Amino acid sequence: MSIKDVSMAAAISIGALIGGHASAQDMPTGVVVRIAELDIDPARLDDYKAAVREEMADAVRLEPGVLAIYSVAEKDNPARLRFFEIYASDEAYRSHLESPHFKKYVAVTQPMITARKLIETIPVQLSAKSR
Amino acid sequence: MSIKDVSMAAAISIGALIGGHASAQDMPTGVVVRIAELDIDPARLDDYKAAVREEMADAVRLEPGVLAIYSVAEKDNPARLRFFEIYASDEAYRSHLESPHFKKYVAVTQPMITARKLIETIPVQLSAKSR
Repeated sequence: MSIKDVSMAAAISIGALIGGHASAQDMPTGVVVRIAELDIDPARLDDYKAAVREEMADAVRLEPGVLAIYSVAEKDNPARLRFFEIYASDEAYRSHLESPHFKKYVAVTQPMITARKLIETIPVQLSAKSR
Repeated sequence: MSIKDVSMAAAISIGALIGGHASAQDMPTGVVVRIAELDIDPARLDDYKAAVREEMADAVRLEPGVLAIYSVAEKDNPARLRFFEIYASDEAYRSHLESPHFKKYVAVTQPMITARKLIETIPVQLSAKSR
């Protein structure tokens, strides 16, 4: 991280604090977004959630190229989980698939997942507050 | 934003700067996540994207409670757009619906949208890098 980057980041953070609100920021170009829809065995739903929460937290904490992983359940179908995943690059995504925490997650949760749909995407716009 | 919030935000930002990499951070509790799937008239797709990009950027920049709006197209069906939206609260979501930029977006894009599916969700885990 260069001095200029640090200064800019500090300026953004300070501006956000002084202004009392976070500033807006678009994702860098070249990011890869993947969507997944998983049906979980309702009898294993709590076990599944515990395993996936651990895996998601590890991935975002340990892997520089995993920018965000969001997981939500459908309100009308709580055993159907939807994932929205943002990687810095295709290389970052492929590296994630080889990570120890992802491999452990797959091994543990494979029998709990009854159906899955994976969707490749083309980003249109990714707008988020700086936090 | 309380003093405690400011201190925590500052600590997170400083930690990220000193460490030379972004730290991981979960979303605050109480957030509302909404998913939308829209089919766009292929002949109007470029017009639709221009309108929605402007609306999304305005919402995240101007509304304190709009934390993120992500829009992606399905790679295999580029006229189907998927949205993943994170609001600070249900109140923030309802306020967004009343915003001038959202109302303008609805008026402009209504004729371009051929089908829509809106999905309410229950967050399981929302993990993102601090940026």
